[in-house]
Amino acid sequence: MTFIDQLQAATRDNASLLCVGLDPDPAKFPAHLKNDASRIHDFCAAIVDATADLVCAFKPQIAYFAAHRAEDQLERLVAHMRRAAPGVPVILDAKRGDIGATAEQYAIEAFERFGADAVTLSPFMGFDSVEPYLRRHGKGAFLLCRTSNPGGDDLQAQRLSSVAGQPLLYEHVARLAQGPWNLNGQLGLVVGATYPAEIARVRELAPTLPLLIPGVGAQGGDATATVRAGLRLQGDAITGPIVVNSSRAILYASAGDDFAAAARQAALKTRDQLHAARIG
Amino acid sequence: MTFIDQLQAATRDNASLLCVGLDPDPAKFPAHLKNDASRIHDFCAAIVDATADLVCAFKPQIAYFAAHRAEDQLERLVAHMRRAAPGVPVILDAKRGDIGATAEQYAIEAFERFGADAVTLSPFMGFDSVEPYLRRHGKGAFLLCRTSNPGGDDLQAQRLSSVAGQPLLYEHVARLAQGPWNLNGQLGLVVGATYPAEIARVRELAPTLPLLIPGVGAQGGDATATVRAGLRLQGDAITGPIVVNSSRAILYASAGDDFAAAARQAALKTRDQLHAARIG
Repeated sequence: MTFIDQLQAATRDNASLLCVGLDPDPAKFPAHLKNDASRIHDFCAAIVDATADLVCAFKPQIAYFAAHRAEDQLERLVAHMRRAAPGVPVILDAKRGDIGATAEQYAIEAFERFGADAVTLSPFMGFDSVEPYLRRHGKGAFLLCRTSNPGGDDLQAQRLSSVAGQPLLYEHVARLAQGPWNLNGQLGLVVGATYPAEIARVRELAPTLPLLIPGVGAQGGDATATVRAGLRLQGDAITGPIVVNSSRAILYASAGDDFAAAARQAALKTRDQLHAARIG
Repeated sequence: MTFIDQLQAATRDNASLLCVGLDPDPAKFPAHLKNDASRIHDFCAAIVDATADLVCAFKPQIAYFAAHRAEDQLERLVAHMRRAAPGVPVILDAKRGDIGATAEQYAIEAFERFGADAVTLSPFMGFDSVEPYLRRHGKGAFLLCRTSNPGGDDLQAQRLSSVAGQPLLYEHVARLAQGPWNLNGQLGLVVGATYPAEIARVRELAPTLPLLIPGVGAQGGDATATVRAGLRLQGDAITGPIVVNSSRAILYASAGDDFAAAARQAALKTRDQLHAARIG
Protein backbone atom coordinates (compact mmCIF):
# COMPACT_ATOMS: atom_id res chain seq x y z
CA MET A 1 0.00 0.00 0.00
CA THR A 2 1.28 3.45 -0.83
CA PHE A 3 1.28 6.31 1.63
CA ILE A 4 -1.65 7.87 -0.21
CA ASP A 5 -3.60 4.60 0.03
CA GLN A 6 -2.80 4.32 3.74
CA LEU A 7 -3.88 7.89 4.33
CA GLN A 8 -7.17 7.39 2.49
CA ALA A 9 -7.85 4.16 4.38
CA ALA A 10 -7.08 5.63 7.82
CA THR A 11 -9.12 8.74 7.02
CA ARG A 12 -12.06 6.52 6.13
CA ASP A 13 -11.68 3.90 8.89
CA ASN A 14 -11.28 6.45 11.69
CA ALA A 15 -13.63 9.00 10.09
CA SER A 16 -10.83 11.43 10.73
CA LEU A 17 -8.94 14.25 9.08
CA LEU A 18 -6.91 14.74 12.24
CA CYS A 19 -3.18 14.12 12.54
CA VAL A 20 -1.68 14.17 16.00
CA GLY A 21 1.72 15.86 15.97
CA LEU A 22 4.22 14.42 18.42
CA ASP A 23 6.43 17.32 19.54
CA PRO A 24 7.41 15.94 22.94
CA ASP A 25 8.88 18.49 25.32
CA PRO A 26 9.83 16.86 28.65
CA ALA A 27 9.41 20.20 30.42
CA LYS A 28 5.68 19.97 29.66
CA PHE A 29 5.20 16.33 30.70
CA PRO A 30 3.00 15.45 33.69
CA ALA A 31 4.67 15.28 37.07
CA HIS A 32 5.69 11.61 37.05
CA LEU A 33 7.51 12.04 33.70
CA LYS A 34 8.47 15.69 33.90
CA ASN A 35 11.95 16.67 32.61
CA ASP A 36 12.84 13.01 32.12
CA ALA A 37 14.12 12.68 28.56
CA SER A 38 14.32 8.92 28.93
CA ARG A 39 10.49 8.85 29.08
CA ILE A 40 9.82 10.60 25.75
CA HIS A 41 8.82 7.30 24.20
CA ASP A 42 6.52 6.46 27.08
CA PHE A 43 4.78 9.84 26.98
CA CYS A 44 4.28 9.64 23.22
CA ALA A 45 3.21 5.99 23.32
CA ALA A 46 0.48 6.88 25.83
CA ILE A 47 -0.74 9.61 23.45
CA VAL A 48 -0.69 7.14 20.55
CA ASP A 49 -2.66 4.57 22.55
CA ALA A 50 -5.22 7.20 23.56
CA THR A 51 -5.77 8.53 20.01
CA ALA A 52 -5.04 5.60 17.67
CA ASP A 53 -8.68 5.22 16.58
CA LEU A 54 -9.20 8.98 16.12
CA VAL A 55 -6.52 9.95 13.62
CA CYS A 56 -5.62 9.67 9.95
CA ALA A 57 -1.89 9.99 10.66
CA PHE A 58 0.74 10.59 13.33
CA LYS A 59 3.46 13.18 12.78
CA PRO A 60 6.51 12.92 15.04
CA GLN A 61 8.76 16.00 14.86
CA ILE A 62 12.33 14.75 14.84
CA ALA A 63 13.90 17.86 16.40
CA TYR A 64 12.29 17.06 19.75
CA PHE A 65 13.95 13.66 19.77
CA ALA A 66 17.31 14.84 18.40
CA ALA A 67 17.67 17.58 21.02
CA HIS A 68 17.53 14.87 23.69
CA ARG A 69 19.68 12.19 21.99
CA ALA A 70 16.46 10.21 21.75
CA GLU A 71 16.52 8.86 18.19
CA ASP A 72 16.33 5.36 19.62
CA GLN A 73 13.10 6.33 21.37
CA LEU A 74 11.70 7.58 18.06
CA GLU A 75 12.56 4.24 16.46
CA ARG A 76 10.75 2.43 19.26
CA LEU A 77 7.83 4.84 19.05
CA VAL A 78 7.25 4.15 15.36
CA ALA A 79 7.40 0.42 16.11
CA HIS A 80 4.81 1.01 18.84
CA MET A 81 2.58 2.90 16.38
CA ARG A 82 2.63 -0.12 14.05
CA ARG A 83 1.26 -2.29 16.84
CA ALA A 84 -1.12 0.20 18.49
CA ALA A 85 -2.36 1.89 15.33
CA PRO A 86 -1.92 -0.52 12.43
CA GLY A 87 -2.80 1.17 9.17
CA VAL A 88 -2.26 4.70 10.46
CA PRO A 89 0.55 6.27 8.39
CA VAL A 90 3.50 7.99 10.02
CA ILE A 91 4.71 11.32 8.67
CA LEU A 92 8.21 12.20 9.86
CA ASP A 93 8.36 15.98 10.24
CA ALA A 94 12.00 16.70 9.40
CA LYS A 95 11.88 19.47 6.75
CA ARG A 96 15.11 18.18 5.25
CA GLY A 97 16.50 19.89 2.17
CA ASP A 98 19.78 18.94 0.58
CA ILE A 99 21.15 17.76 -2.75
CA GLY A 100 21.56 14.34 -4.36
CA ALA A 101 23.88 12.15 -2.35
CA THR A 102 23.01 13.86 0.93
CA ALA A 103 19.27 13.74 0.26
CA GLU A 104 19.73 10.03 -0.30
CA GLN A 105 21.15 9.74 3.23
CA TYR A 106 18.21 11.66 4.67
CA ALA A 107 15.83 9.35 2.76
CA ILE A 108 17.54 6.39 4.42
CA GLU A 109 17.14 8.13 7.78
CA ALA A 110 13.42 8.77 7.29
CA PHE A 111 12.25 5.63 5.54
CA GLU A 112 14.65 2.90 6.63
CA ARG A 113 15.91 3.96 10.03
CA PHE A 114 12.69 5.46 11.34
CA GLY A 115 10.35 3.52 9.08
CA ALA A 116 8.22 6.56 8.21
CA ASP A 117 5.64 6.44 5.43
CA ALA A 118 6.13 10.08 4.47
CA VAL A 119 8.47 12.97 5.27
CA THR A 120 8.34 16.75 5.18
CA LEU A 121 10.90 18.54 2.97
CA SER A 122 12.02 22.05 2.08
CA PRO A 123 11.87 22.91 -1.64
CA PHE A 124 14.51 25.68 -1.47
CA MET A 125 17.24 23.72 -3.29
CA GLY A 126 14.95 22.66 -6.12
CA PHE A 127 13.87 19.45 -7.79
CA ASP A 128 17.02 17.40 -7.39
CA SER A 129 16.76 17.90 -3.63
CA VAL A 130 13.31 16.25 -3.76
CA GLU A 131 13.86 13.58 -6.40
CA PRO A 132 15.84 11.10 -4.23
CA TYR A 133 12.79 10.68 -1.99
CA LEU A 134 10.61 9.93 -5.01
CA ARG A 135 12.73 6.91 -5.86
CA ARG A 136 11.17 5.29 -2.77
CA HIS A 137 8.00 4.25 -4.55
CA GLY A 138 4.94 4.44 -2.37
CA LYS A 139 6.47 6.81 0.17
CA GLY A 140 5.10 10.34 0.52
CA ALA A 141 6.91 13.70 0.59
CA PHE A 142 5.26 16.92 1.75
CA LEU A 143 6.99 20.07 0.50
CA LEU A 144 6.90 23.25 2.55
CA CYS A 145 4.69 25.60 0.56
CA ARG A 146 2.93 28.26 2.64
CA THR A 147 3.66 28.48 6.34
CA SER A 148 1.74 30.73 8.67
CA ASN A 149 4.54 31.69 11.06
CA PRO A 150 5.36 35.44 11.25
CA GLY A 151 8.29 35.07 8.81
CA GLY A 152 6.27 32.99 6.37
CA ASP A 153 5.87 36.04 4.14
CA ASP A 154 9.59 36.82 3.98
CA LEU A 155 10.22 34.56 1.00
CA GLN A 156 7.05 32.58 0.36
CA ALA A 157 4.80 35.59 -0.31
CA GLN A 158 7.12 37.29 -2.80
CA ARG A 159 5.88 37.62 -6.37
CA LEU A 160 7.93 35.99 -9.11
CA SER A 161 8.06 38.05 -12.29
CA SER A 162 10.23 35.47 -14.00
CA VAL A 163 7.58 32.74 -13.93
CA ALA A 164 4.56 32.66 -16.26
CA GLY A 165 1.54 34.21 -14.57
CA GLN A 166 3.74 35.94 -12.00
CA PRO A 167 2.78 33.68 -9.09
CA LEU A 168 3.83 34.17 -5.52
CA LEU A 169 6.69 31.89 -4.53
CA TYR A 170 4.37 29.53 -2.63
CA GLU A 171 2.01 29.38 -5.60
CA HIS A 172 4.97 28.42 -7.78
CA VAL A 173 5.88 25.63 -5.36
CA ALA A 174 2.28 24.38 -5.41
CA ARG A 175 2.27 24.24 -9.22
CA LEU A 176 5.61 22.46 -9.38
CA ALA A 177 4.43 19.89 -6.86
CA GLN A 178 1.12 19.26 -8.61
CA GLY A 179 2.81 19.09 -12.00
CA PRO A 180 6.36 18.51 -13.19
CA TRP A 181 7.90 17.49 -9.87
CA ASN A 182 5.28 14.87 -9.01
CA LEU A 183 6.80 11.99 -10.95
CA ASN A 184 4.98 9.15 -9.23
CA GLY A 185 2.12 10.84 -7.39
CA GLN A 186 4.03 10.96 -4.10
CA LEU A 187 4.05 14.69 -3.34
CA GLY A 188 1.98 16.70 -0.92
CA LEU A 189 2.22 20.26 0.41
CA VAL A 190 2.52 21.85 3.85
CA VAL A 191 0.13 24.79 4.21
CA GLY A 192 -0.50 26.62 7.47
CA ALA A 193 -4.04 26.75 8.87
CA THR A 194 -4.05 30.39 9.88
CA TYR A 195 -5.20 31.81 6.55
CA PRO A 196 -7.94 29.67 4.97
CA ALA A 197 -7.89 31.82 1.83
CA GLU A 198 -4.34 30.65 1.21
CA ILE A 199 -5.30 27.03 1.76
CA ALA A 200 -8.01 27.55 -0.84
CA ARG A 201 -5.50 29.11 -3.24
CA VAL A 202 -3.09 26.20 -2.83
CA ARG A 203 -5.97 23.76 -3.34
CA GLU A 204 -6.89 25.59 -6.55
CA LEU A 205 -3.35 25.16 -7.87
CA ALA A 206 -2.89 21.63 -6.55
CA PRO A 207 -6.34 20.04 -6.78
CA THR A 208 -5.34 16.47 -5.96
CA LEU A 209 -2.32 16.73 -3.64
CA PRO A 210 -2.64 15.85 0.03
CA LEU A 211 -2.26 19.01 2.11
CA LEU A 212 -0.62 18.74 5.50
CA ILE A 213 -2.10 21.60 7.50
CA PRO A 214 -0.50 22.41 10.84
CA GLY A 215 -1.74 25.10 13.13
CA VAL A 216 -5.18 23.97 14.22
CA GLY A 217 -5.47 24.04 17.99
CA ALA A 218 -2.80 25.86 19.98
CA GLN A 219 -1.72 27.86 16.96
CA GLY A 220 -5.20 29.22 16.44
CA GLY A 221 -6.32 27.92 13.05
CA ASP A 222 -10.05 27.38 12.62
CA ALA A 223 -10.99 23.75 12.04
CA THR A 224 -14.14 24.36 10.01
CA ALA A 225 -12.61 26.97 7.74
CA THR A 226 -9.59 24.74 7.22
CA VAL A 227 -11.66 21.79 6.03
CA ARG A 228 -13.85 23.90 3.75
CA ALA A 229 -10.82 25.52 2.16
CA GLY A 230 -8.71 22.42 1.76
CA LEU A 231 -10.76 19.24 1.39
CA ARG A 232 -12.09 18.18 -2.00
CA LEU A 233 -14.76 15.49 -2.31
CA GLN A 234 -16.58 13.81 -5.17
CA GLY A 235 -19.52 12.13 -3.54
CA ASP A 236 -18.02 10.21 -0.66
CA ALA A 237 -14.59 9.94 -2.26
CA ILE A 238 -11.84 12.30 -1.25
CA THR A 239 -10.13 13.68 -4.36
CA GLY A 240 -8.14 16.36 -2.53
CA PRO A 241 -7.04 14.96 0.84
CA ILE A 242 -6.11 16.98 3.90
CA VAL A 243 -4.18 16.03 7.00
CA VAL A 244 -4.97 18.54 9.72
CA ASN A 245 -2.31 18.53 12.40
CA SER A 246 -2.70 19.44 16.03
CA SER A 247 0.19 18.96 18.44
CA ARG A 248 0.31 20.94 21.67
CA ALA A 249 -3.46 21.29 22.14
CA ILE A 250 -3.65 17.50 22.29
CA LEU A 251 -0.32 16.50 23.89
CA TYR A 252 -0.65 18.99 26.72
CA ALA A 253 -4.44 19.07 27.11
CA SER A 254 -3.79 18.30 30.77
CA ALA A 255 -0.62 18.73 32.78
CA GLY A 256 -1.80 16.07 35.23
CA ASP A 257 -1.72 12.31 35.34
CA ASP A 258 -4.87 12.29 33.23
CA PHE A 259 -2.87 13.64 30.27
CA ALA A 260 -3.68 10.68 28.01
CA ALA A 261 -7.41 10.77 28.73
CA ALA A 262 -7.39 14.54 28.26
CA ALA A 263 -5.49 14.11 24.99
CA ARG A 264 -8.17 11.69 23.83
CA GLN A 265 -10.92 14.16 24.68
CA ALA A 266 -9.12 16.98 22.87
CA ALA A 267 -8.47 14.75 19.85
CA LEU A 268 -12.06 13.55 19.81
CA LYS A 269 -13.37 17.10 19.89
CA THR A 270 -11.10 18.23 17.06
CA ARG A 271 -11.75 15.06 15.05
CA ASP A 272 -15.49 15.65 15.35
CA GLN A 273 -15.18 19.35 14.46
CA LEU A 274 -13.23 18.45 11.35
CA HIS A 275 -15.68 15.70 10.43
CA ALA A 276 -18.68 17.98 10.96
CA ALA A 277 -17.12 20.58 8.68
CA ARG A 278 -16.71 17.89 6.04
CA ILE A 279 -20.32 16.87 5.95
CA GLY A 280 -21.80 20.22 6.96
CA MET B 1 35.67 33.62 21.20
CA THR B 2 32.88 33.89 18.65
CA PHE B 3 32.61 31.65 15.61
CA ILE B 4 33.77 34.55 13.43
CA ASP B 5 36.81 35.10 15.65
CA GLN B 6 37.63 31.38 15.57
CA LEU B 7 37.28 31.31 11.80
CA GLN B 8 39.56 34.33 11.37
CA ALA B 9 42.16 32.87 13.72
CA ALA B 10 42.18 29.42 12.09
CA THR B 11 42.32 31.00 8.62
CA ARG B 12 45.37 32.98 9.72
CA ASP B 13 47.13 30.30 11.79
CA ASN B 14 46.78 27.60 9.13
CA ALA B 15 47.12 30.03 6.20
CA SER B 16 44.02 28.34 4.91
CA LEU B 17 40.68 29.10 3.31
CA LEU B 18 39.94 25.38 3.08
CA CYS B 19 37.20 23.59 4.96
CA VAL B 20 37.21 19.80 4.89
CA GLY B 21 33.69 18.46 4.60
CA LEU B 22 33.08 15.20 6.43
CA ASP B 23 30.47 13.29 4.40
CA PRO B 24 31.46 9.78 5.44
CA ASP B 25 30.08 7.01 3.22
CA PRO B 26 31.19 3.59 4.49
CA ALA B 27 30.83 2.14 0.98
CA LYS B 28 33.76 4.37 -0.05
CA PHE B 29 36.00 3.60 2.92
CA PRO B 30 39.31 1.76 2.41
CA ALA B 31 39.26 -2.03 2.59
CA HIS B 32 39.88 -2.44 6.32
CA LEU B 33 36.94 -0.11 7.18
CA LYS B 34 34.73 -0.66 4.16
CA ASN B 35 30.97 -0.92 4.76
CA ASP B 36 31.51 -0.85 8.53
CA ALA B 37 29.26 1.88 9.91
CA SER B 38 30.75 1.42 13.37
CA ARG B 39 34.02 2.85 11.99
CA ILE B 40 32.65 6.18 10.72
CA HIS B 41 34.25 7.97 13.63
CA ASP B 42 37.58 6.28 13.04
CA PHE B 43 37.64 7.11 9.34
CA CYS B 44 36.74 10.75 9.99
CA ALA B 45 39.16 11.07 12.91
CA ALA B 46 41.99 9.90 10.64
CA ILE B 47 41.02 12.59 8.11
CA VAL B 48 40.92 15.19 10.89
CA ASP B 49 44.36 14.16 12.16
CA ALA B 50 45.79 14.32 8.64
CA THR B 51 44.41 17.77 7.83
CA ALA B 52 44.13 19.59 11.18
CA ASP B 53 46.92 22.08 10.35
CA LEU B 54 45.64 22.73 6.82
CA VAL B 55 42.09 23.93 7.36
CA CYS B 56 40.10 26.92 8.56
CA ALA B 57 37.12 24.73 9.53
CA PHE B 58 35.66 21.23 9.51
CA LYS B 59 32.15 20.65 8.24
CA PRO B 60 30.53 17.34 9.22
CA GLN B 61 27.33 16.61 7.26
CA ILE B 62 24.83 15.17 9.73
CA ALA B 63 22.83 13.12 7.19
CA TYR B 64 25.74 10.70 6.75
CA PHE B 65 25.74 10.00 10.47
CA ALA B 66 21.95 9.89 10.87
CA ALA B 67 21.51 7.37 8.06
CA HIS B 68 23.72 4.95 10.02
CA ARG B 69 22.36 5.60 13.54
CA ALA B 70 25.79 7.14 14.22
CA GLU B 71 24.99 10.36 16.08
CA ASP B 72 27.09 9.09 18.97
CA GLN B 73 30.03 8.82 16.60
CA LEU B 74 29.47 12.43 15.50
CA GLU B 75 29.52 13.52 19.14
CA ARG B 76 32.81 11.68 19.64
CA LEU B 77 34.18 13.08 16.40
CA VAL B 78 33.59 16.68 17.45
CA ALA B 79 35.26 15.90 20.77
CA HIS B 80 38.19 14.48 18.82
CA MET B 81 38.39 17.64 16.69
CA ARG B 82 38.71 19.74 19.86
CA ARG B 83 41.78 17.73 20.86
CA ALA B 84 43.35 17.22 17.42
CA ALA B 85 42.52 20.61 15.97
CA PRO B 86 42.06 23.07 18.82
CA GLY B 87 40.94 26.41 17.51
CA VAL B 88 39.48 25.04 14.27
CA PRO B 89 35.74 25.79 14.24
CA VAL B 90 33.18 23.11 13.48
CA ILE B 91 30.31 23.88 11.12
CA LEU B 92 27.46 21.38 11.39
CA ASP B 93 25.93 20.99 7.94
CA ALA B 94 22.30 20.29 8.76
CA LYS B 95 20.30 22.78 6.64
CA ARG B 96 17.57 22.81 9.27
CA GLY B 97 14.59 25.07 8.75
CA ASP B 98 11.64 25.19 11.10
CA ILE B 99 9.74 27.65 13.24
CA GLY B 100 10.15 28.94 16.78
CA ALA B 101 9.90 26.15 19.33
CA THR B 102 11.12 23.52 16.87
CA ALA B 103 14.06 25.64 15.71
CA GLU B 104 14.99 25.94 19.37
CA GLN B 105 15.21 22.14 19.56
CA TYR B 106 17.41 22.05 16.47
CA ALA B 107 19.64 24.73 18.02
CA ILE B 108 20.04 22.50 21.08
CA GLU B 109 20.91 19.60 18.78
CA ALA B 110 23.57 21.56 16.90
CA PHE B 111 25.16 23.63 19.62
CA GLU B 112 24.68 21.63 22.81
CA ARG B 113 24.44 18.02 21.75
CA PHE B 114 27.02 18.15 18.95
CA GLY B 115 28.94 21.16 20.24
CA ALA B 116 29.15 22.84 16.83
CA ASP B 117 30.33 26.43 16.46
CA ALA B 118 28.08 27.13 13.48
CA VAL B 119 25.25 25.48 11.58
CA THR B 120 23.79 25.64 8.08
CA LEU B 121 20.11 26.62 7.77
CA SER B 122 17.41 27.00 5.14
CA PRO B 123 15.77 30.46 4.94
CA PHE B 124 12.53 29.25 3.33
CA MET B 125 10.38 29.79 6.47
CA GLY B 126 11.71 33.30 7.06
CA PHE B 127 13.26 35.24 9.88
CA ASP B 128 11.61 33.59 12.86
CA SER B 129 13.02 30.25 11.66
CA VAL B 130 16.53 31.76 11.91
CA GLU B 131 16.18 33.91 14.99
CA PRO B 132 16.34 31.12 17.63
CA TYR B 133 19.89 30.33 16.51
CA LEU B 134 20.90 33.97 16.91
CA ARG B 135 20.04 33.84 20.60
CA ARG B 136 23.14 31.66 20.97
CA HIS B 137 25.56 34.55 21.05
CA GLY B 138 28.85 33.83 19.36
CA LYS B 139 27.53 30.90 17.35
CA GLY B 140 27.39 31.16 13.56
CA ALA B 141 24.54 30.40 11.15
CA PHE B 142 25.03 30.02 7.38
CA LEU B 143 21.84 30.46 5.36
CA LEU B 144 21.36 28.66 2.07
CA CYS B 145 21.53 31.40 -0.55
CA ARG B 146 22.66 30.24 -3.98
CA THR B 147 23.33 26.56 -4.55
CA SER B 148 24.88 25.23 -7.75
CA ASN B 149 23.03 21.91 -7.99
CA PRO B 150 20.88 21.42 -11.14
CA GLY B 151 17.70 22.46 -9.28
CA GLY B 152 19.34 25.51 -7.72
CA ASP B 153 17.59 27.72 -10.28
CA ASP B 154 14.11 26.34 -9.58
CA LEU B 155 13.41 28.81 -6.78
CA GLN B 156 16.64 30.67 -6.02
CA ALA B 157 17.02 32.23 -9.48
CA GLN B 158 13.47 33.55 -9.74
CA ARG B 159 13.06 37.31 -9.90
CA LEU B 160 11.00 39.00 -7.19
CA SER B 161 8.87 41.85 -8.49
CA SER B 162 7.48 42.51 -5.02
CA VAL B 163 10.84 43.49 -3.51
CA ALA B 164 12.53 46.85 -4.15
CA GLY B 165 15.04 46.56 -6.97
CA GLN B 166 13.46 43.32 -8.21
CA PRO B 167 16.24 41.05 -6.99
CA LEU B 168 16.50 37.36 -7.68
CA LEU B 169 15.40 35.26 -4.70
CA TYR B 170 19.00 34.48 -3.72
CA GLU B 171 19.94 38.13 -3.94
CA HIS B 172 17.05 38.92 -1.60
CA VAL B 173 18.32 36.32 0.87
CA ALA B 174 21.82 37.82 0.70
CA ARG B 175 20.48 41.31 1.46
CA LEU B 176 18.35 40.10 4.34
CA ALA B 177 21.32 38.24 5.83
CA GLN B 178 23.69 41.19 5.49
CA GLY B 179 21.11 43.59 6.84
CA PRO B 180 17.94 43.26 8.88
CA TRP B 181 18.28 39.57 9.83
CA ASN B 182 21.86 39.82 11.09
CA LEU B 183 21.05 40.95 14.62
CA ASN B 184 24.37 40.11 16.25
CA GLY B 185 26.74 39.59 13.34
CA GLN B 186 26.31 35.82 13.39
CA LEU B 187 25.06 35.15 9.87
CA GLY B 188 26.87 33.81 6.83
CA LEU B 189 25.70 32.49 3.46
CA VAL B 190 26.08 29.25 1.52
CA VAL B 191 27.01 29.92 -2.11
CA GLY B 192 28.02 27.20 -4.58
CA ALA B 193 31.43 27.37 -6.26
CA THR B 194 30.32 26.47 -9.76
CA TYR B 195 29.47 29.99 -10.93
CA PRO B 196 32.04 32.54 -9.71
CA ALA B 197 29.95 35.41 -11.11
CA GLU B 198 27.23 34.51 -8.63
CA ILE B 199 29.72 34.37 -5.76
CA ALA B 200 30.81 37.86 -6.79
CA ARG B 201 27.18 39.03 -6.86
CA VAL B 202 26.51 37.65 -3.39
CA ARG B 203 29.71 39.28 -2.13
CA GLU B 204 28.55 42.61 -3.60
CA LEU B 205 25.28 42.35 -1.68
CA ALA B 206 26.84 40.95 1.49
CA PRO B 207 30.29 42.54 1.69
CA THR B 208 31.21 41.36 5.18
CA LEU B 209 29.43 38.03 5.67
CA PRO B 210 31.41 34.79 5.74
CA LEU B 211 30.58 32.77 2.64
CA LEU B 212 30.58 29.00 2.90
CA ILE B 213 31.39 27.79 -0.60
CA PRO B 214 30.95 24.09 -1.32
CA GLY B 215 31.74 22.52 -4.65
CA VAL B 216 35.50 22.94 -5.07
CA GLY B 217 37.11 19.60 -5.90
CA ALA B 218 34.89 16.70 -6.91
CA GLN B 219 32.02 19.02 -7.82
CA GLY B 220 34.20 20.96 -10.29
CA GLY B 221 34.40 24.48 -8.89
CA ASP B 222 37.58 26.39 -9.72
CA ALA B 223 39.63 27.30 -6.64
CA THR B 224 41.25 30.42 -8.00
CA ALA B 225 38.07 31.88 -9.45
CA THR B 226 36.26 31.13 -6.21
CA VAL B 227 38.76 33.04 -4.08
CA ARG B 228 38.88 36.02 -6.41
CA ALA B 229 35.10 36.25 -6.51
CA GLY B 230 34.46 35.75 -2.82
CA LEU B 231 37.33 36.89 -0.62
CA ARG B 232 37.62 40.52 0.45
CA LEU B 233 40.84 41.89 1.97
CA GLN B 234 41.99 45.21 3.33
CA GLY B 235 45.75 44.90 3.47
CA ASP B 236 46.32 41.63 5.30
CA ALA B 237 43.00 41.71 7.08
CA ILE B 238 40.08 39.69 5.78
CA THR B 239 36.96 41.86 5.69
CA GLY B 240 34.87 39.39 3.67
CA PRO B 241 35.76 35.84 4.77
CA ILE B 242 35.28 32.69 2.75
CA VAL B 243 35.21 29.06 3.80
CA VAL B 244 35.86 26.90 0.75
CA ASN B 245 34.63 23.38 1.27
CA SER B 246 35.92 20.23 -0.32
CA SER B 247 34.60 16.84 0.77
CA ARG B 248 34.87 13.85 -1.54
CA ALA B 249 38.06 14.94 -3.34
CA ILE B 250 39.81 14.87 0.03
CA LEU B 251 38.04 12.06 1.89
CA TYR B 252 38.34 9.62 -0.98
CA ALA B 253 41.62 10.79 -2.52
CA SER B 254 42.75 7.20 -2.22
CA ALA B 255 40.68 4.05 -1.79
CA GLY B 256 43.66 2.30 -0.22
CA ASP B 257 45.15 2.12 3.23
CA ASP B 258 47.01 5.35 2.45
CA PHE B 259 43.70 7.24 2.48
CA ALA B 260 44.75 9.62 5.25
CA ALA B 261 48.10 10.47 3.67
CA ALA B 262 46.36 10.93 0.32
CA ALA B 263 43.74 13.14 1.99
CA ARG B 264 46.54 15.27 3.39
CA GLN B 265 48.14 15.65 -0.03
CA ALA B 266 44.81 16.58 -1.62
CA ALA B 267 44.06 19.06 1.17
CA LEU B 268 47.56 20.55 0.93
CA LYS B 269 47.21 21.04 -2.79
CA THR B 270 43.81 22.70 -2.49
CA ARG B 271 44.92 24.78 0.49
CA ASP B 272 47.90 26.03 -1.49
CA GLN B 273 45.82 26.74 -4.59
CA LEU B 274 43.40 28.79 -2.50
CA HIS B 275 46.24 30.61 -0.74
CA ALA B 276 48.01 31.38 -4.03
CA ALA B 277 44.81 32.83 -5.44
CA ARG B 278 44.55 35.05 -2.38
CA ILE B 279 47.97 36.59 -2.76
CA GLY B 280 48.21 36.27 -6.56
